[in-house]
Parts: sequence; C-alpha cells; structure tokens
Amino acid sequence: MTDFPSLAEAEARDAADPLAGWRDRFTLPEGVIYLDGNSLGALPVATRALMHDAVDRQWGEGLIRSWNDADWIGAPRRIGDKIAALIGAAPGEVIACDSVTVNLYKLMGAILAARPGQGRTILTESGNFPTDLHVAAGIAAQHSLVLDACSREAIADRIGPDVALIVLTHVHYKTGERFDMAAIQALADAHGVPLIWDLSHSTGAVPLNLAADAARFAVGCGYKYLNGGPGAPAFLYVAAEALEFLGSPIQGWMGHAAPFAMTDDYAPAPGIERFLAGTPPMLSLLALEAGVDLMLEADRDALWTKSQALFDFLGQLMATRCPELQPITPARADLRGSHASFAHPNAWPINRALIDAGVIGDFRAPDVLRLGLTPLYLGFADIWHAVDRLATIMGEGRWQRSEYSAPTRVT
Amino acid sequence: MTDFPSLAEAEARDAADPLAGWRDRFTLPEGVIYLDGNSLGALPVATRALMHDAVDRQWGEGLIRSWNDADWIGAPRRIGDKIAALIGAAPGEVIACDSVTVNLYKLMGAILAARPGQGRTILTESGNFPTDLHVAAGIAAQHSLVLDACSREAIADRIGPDVALIVLTHVHYKTGERFDMAAIQALADAHGVPLIWDLSHSTGAVPLNLAADAARFAVGCGYKYLNGGPGAPAFLYVAAEALEFLGSPIQGWMGHAAPFAMTDDYAPAPGIERFLAGTPPMLSLLALEAGVDLMLEADRDALWTKSQALFDFLGQLMATRCPELQPITPARADLRGSHASFAHPNAWPINRALIDAGVIGDFRAPDVLRLGLTPLYLGFADIWHAVDRLATIMGEGRWQRSEYSAPTRVT
Repeated sequence: MTDFPSLAEAEARDAADPLAGWRDRFTLPEGVIYLDGNSLGALPVATRALMHDAVDRQWGEGLIRSWNDADWIGAPRRIGDKIAALIGAAPGEVIACDSVTVNLYKLMGAILAARPGQGRTILTESGNFPTDLHVAAGIAAQHSLVLDACSREAIADRIGPDVALIVLTHVHYKTGERFDMAAIQALADAHGVPLIWDLSHSTGAVPLNLAADAARFAVGCGYKYLNGGPGAPAFLYVAAEALEFLGSPIQGWMGHAAPFAMTDDYAPAPGIERFLAGTPPMLSLLALEAGVDLMLEADRDALWTKSQALFDFLGQLMATRCPELQPITPARADLRGSHASFAHPNAWPINRALIDAGVIGDFRAPDVLRLGLTPLYLGFADIWHAVDRLATIMGEGRWQRSEYSAPTRVT
Repeated sequence: MTDFPSLAEAEARDAADPLAGWRDRFTLPEGVIYLDGNSLGALPVATRALMHDAVDRQWGEGLIRSWNDADWIGAPRRIGDKIAALIGAAPGEVIACDSVTVNLYKLMGAILAARPGQGRTILTESGNFPTDLHVAAGIAAQHSLVLDACSREAIADRIGPDVALIVLTHVHYKTGERFDMAAIQALADAHGVPLIWDLSHSTGAVPLNLAADAARFAVGCGYKYLNGGPGAPAFLYVAAEALEFLGSPIQGWMGHAAPFAMTDDYAPAPGIERFLAGTPPMLSLLALEAGVDLMLEADRDALWTKSQALFDFLGQLMATRCPELQPITPARADLRGSHASFAHPNAWPINRALIDAGVIGDFRAPDVLRLGLTPLYLGFADIWHAVDRLATIMGEGRWQRSEYSAPTRVT
C-alpha cells in the first residue's frame, strides 16, 4: 500500500549495517533521535571517562605538573597531527587551537601580510557562514581591501589578478552544497591567488584529501562531526611548503619558538605551532582529542558510504511523506556534505514541533530545516521514525500551535 | 635556640585562621605543598561534580539543546558579570572568552582603530610577560607604530602625546611588583592616552577596584587565582562609557548583534558581547565559572589579609633559613601581588629538587624561584614545611645532583 520504505526495511538495513556497533560508543539520551550532530556532535562514551580523568587526576592531582607529565603542552600539535590524518594532511601541518573564527583571522592576516599589495579584493561566497563573512569583512577593511561576496555560480569567474585572497566554505552550512576542492584550488593556483578552505562541515563528514587536492590553507571545526564537545577548539592547516612564509598576526607566547625562555623578543616557532596564540583551554582540548581518536578508529570510507545511504533513504521518505518540505541539498553525493536541508516557510515552528516529538534537527534562518546525518551513531530506523514524526506534525498541522509561534534563540 | 618561627607557631596560626576551612573546598593531592596556584589554580571540589554534570548531562543528554536549556549561550556574559564583581567593574563591562593573548590583541586593535593617527608608540614595560610584549610588537607593526618597552622606572616619564597606547601588567608575573593603578591611570588620563591593564596576576589575588581607579580597559587570566582549570578562558573588560567607540578587529559571529539571524552583514552586539569571536570552549568555560563562583563566596578582604600574613611568614623563614635565595618581591604589601619570588643563579635545579621533595613551586627564567601564596588553600604550616624542605635542599646541596642538571620544559 505504501510507496515509501517500511520500518521493517529500515530495521533490516540497520541489521546489515557494518557500522551499527558504533552507536554503542556514544551516550545518546533515551527516546531522542539526534539529527544535529553537524551542529554539536554526540558525547562519546570514552570521552566521559577521559574528562573525569582530565579533571580529577590530571588537573586535581597532577596540577601544574601535567603540562609536562600529561603532555598538555604537546596537545595542540598532537591533536593537530591526528586531525591531519583525517583530512589528508601531513604531521606538522595542522594545529588544534582557538576557534574557527580566530583561526580564520590568523590565517587571513598571515597570508595578506605575506603578499602586500597583491590584489584588491577578498573573494568569498555570499551566504557563506556568517563568521567567515564577518572576519573577512573586518580584515578586508584593515588591509584596505574590498570584500567581494558573490554567488556560488559567480565565484569561478571572479578569480583573477584583482583577488588578494579567497575564502570558501567547502560544504555549505545551510544548503549542504560542496565545492569541488581540486577544481577550484586549481583555478586559484592558475591565477596565483591564495585560497583558504573552511572545512567546518566537511571534516569527519566527507572524504578529504588536502594534499591530493593541493589545498594549502584551511581551518575547521572540532565540535561537529569530530564530536569534540560544545565549543571544542578548532584547527588550522597550512601546507608545509607555505609555512615558512607566514606569521600569525596574533603573536602569542605559545607560538614563540621558546615559550619558556620568556624573552622580550618574539621569534615564531619553526613549525605550525607558530599559529598558537595563548594558553589553550585544556579541558576542551582533551575532549576534542577523544572525539578525534574515535574518528580515527572508524573506517572513513564506510562512513561516507553509509552517509550516502542515509541521505538517499531520507530523501526517499521525505519525498513521499513530507513533500511540502523542499529539498535544497544536491542529490549527487559528490556535490554535497553529510547533512540534508529542506526549505519551508514555516521551518522554524516545524523544527520546534519536531524537537518536542523527540527528533532534534536544526533550523537555519530564514526557512531551512537542517538534518545532520552522522553515520557513526545514526541508523536507518532513526531516519524512518524521524520522518514518520515529521509527517505526523505536517499532517496534523501541529507546528501551527501557539507554543511554536514565538522565535527564541536557536543554535 | 631558633631565630625563626617554629612549626608549633605555624600550626597555632592555622588554628586561628578564619579561612582555614576553605582548604576542604579544594582537592589537593596528598603529600604535596602547592605553591604554584598563581600559575595553575587548584581544583575546587565543586568543580569536579560540575564538570561531570557538564559532560554527562549537559552535553551527553542535553546535546544541542543545552545552548538554551543550560544557558551555554549566556555563559561568556554571565561569567563576565561574576568576574566584574571581583574586580570592581559593573555588570556588562566584562566578558569571559578566548585567551589573554587573543583578548589583548582584540582590545589593542579596537583602541588603535578608534584613534587613528594619535601617537607613535605603544608603551609597555621591558620584561613584561612575554605574550603582552609579543602581541604589542605584532600589533605595533600592523599599525605602523613603534613598540617602546622601557624599564618600570621610566614608564611614568614616557607617558605623553607620542604614545598611542599603554599596556601594563598590574602585578609582574616574575617579580610580583605591583603598579599603583590609580596613579598610573591618572597620569595616562592626564595625557589622554588609553591604558590596558593585564590583571592576570592580580585577579583573585590583590584588591582590585577598576571603577575607583578609573581603569577603562583590562584583560585577565582565568586559570590562576580564579581556579578555572588549565588554560581556562580569559576575560576582557571595557568600561561602559568606552564601549560604544570600540569594535573588535576579529569580527566573529558570536560578537554579532544577532548571531542566529545569520546575516551576511556584520553588526556588533550593543554590549560587551561585541568582543566575542567564535564559539566559546564551553567545558573550559564552565570550569572557570565554578572557580569564579567559589572566589565570589570568599571574603576577599580576609583573603588579602591572609596573603600578607603568609608573605611575611615566608619572608621571615626564608631570611633565616634560606638566606642564599635573594628576595626580589617588594616587602610592602601595596607594592606587590600574592606571590613571592627569590633569585638564585641555580633556581632551576633548586626548583626541581624542591618539587621532588613534595613542594611545587615555579621557576621563571633565568634565575627566579617563584612561590605562589593562595590563601584559600594554603596555611602557615604549609609554608613552614616548604621552607624547611628548601633549607634541607640548600644545606645538603641536593640541587647539585645530576638528575637536576638538565633543563626540561617548565611551565
């Protein structure tokens, strides 16, 4: 009778899923279907114990000694090296520190300072993630450049000698659209224009090979698919051959060649550590490490295969059961990330009603319902139930209830 | 027979100490005398439970909902308001975020951008904490200014129309010397030169009243006397009347007037939130809050009174039992912070030997043994035993053992 996959079919697919066991590595609340791991990743079981240890033993017992004994001092580089392995970079090319915002600022400032007078604009995509646009606007003004935020379609044509720097988000936070990294990078290289990739919605989500794609500069987020915890530190990537030409505009003591020599004069660390600024927030950094360790353990090809299967399964269900919601994420796997977005003029109250029904998705202004597909801890039955509940909300018009009418903060 | 206070006297003072009960609010390791709370504060008992809750319940159970339900989103301002109460600032004048380094950069950049062309130099103290010097050097170059790092004695004479900005650390990280905030601030104001105070070694350590001293700009550290945990986020203070003229050079989405409107255009938040950059490292931020809460509960006059008593007691013991170590911290209480430093050409191996003897102090290059006096969890008997062990090390020449000869990293 139905023209959409049955729950039994979903359960059969879960039973056959080689990644199904991974769900037990996360502590998800009872009765919740979590489709927002692209905004804040779930808590790994191992992280709980590690954080208790970090607080109770490393800080409480070890005190200041843990900077050496627990190698806190090495954490930004150690975790950076682990992230490097996830994104196709080499050890020494990635450092875990600060936020995406601050890392973008440091990297943009470093590149612009290294190439004074070259180009007139900073090129980015209109509708890019706000922090990318805001940081770019601020630094453009500081360097007497013009911010050129144009449509995705126009980007390629805009790349030319006028451009001082390009900043692109690899997977779009709202639509899920993915740039062809190798193609755009080659175009930028052909014009000799440096290009920074924001990998916030890519890392741990889609296949990444920065070396193969010849990407030289990137930043990325720790609290989404890396499951690093709320506001986890971010990362910054500079290809080895570019590093020596760059210095951070924020010259902090942790980026000094010899931080504990305590000299008045600044000398940047020879390696990627030069992009460190202040003392890193160690508890948050250690939680990030646990998330990265878990991701390193997973078979990333299998993850991406499952992400595609979940996406297609969701699309099939949505098209038949919730046709009022318009899919805006590209259907072709190589053109998107690991989340699926749907437009509806009432996306805000729909999302609120969905949360009350035990399905945590995400709203993104002005009209997008965003559903994150995290293959490590989501199954096909989860997707089935989520759409089933959404179909009920839509069918009953439940989102029109007054309790869902007043916008509040949504993260 | 002895010309120094006896252990019995120390114990008697502990028994009469109105703050003695506070020690039980901290989890200190057995057998360790911790004289490095000025570098990394001890773990409050309450923080353990709070962090377990933050990880297990707020993150693990609440997931993305905790940004609203646990008011993560309000944490930087909420904690800022609490810190404001500790430093004589008003609610809305302080924000908890990033590191001291990044906050210094943001504040220096904001002030210089607001007063273009005024002054030629950035004035600071030579031998200031390295990150202050490094950030100042970097931003001076970016703004075509000269960094003038002069001796403490010369500072006052240097303040004049040539100075674009002054950056001073209120209590010196190494010597413990304290500037007269009101006097220097008045001098800067008389010349119309903005002045940023680094309160890293002051906050929670010495009496502070920024409003009374007319201080308008400050940054400070969360992981020292505030007991906020390793690398805890820092804070940034701007007096209310100065805020509207300042914009952060790092224009991040969390500093936007409406972060979740997700607009392309940047509009700074009306309040101190404009100095936020990226998503804050929430686990580290919540640990900081627990430390700040504890400090708010304490009687700060009593803390400073006890700090002075501990300092004098230590000085008396050191002068008689370890005369080889030269005190370099001013004896007068109003001229110093809450740590006591001693110079010795072999301070490095002496500190290592002291750590092995169960007394954790700190070495600061090139020749300083630094002992932090944290009245919340240190008593007179602790000081007595610490000096007793140090006297033994000095008397036996134990620091000359080969195991103490090779410098390693010391934080």
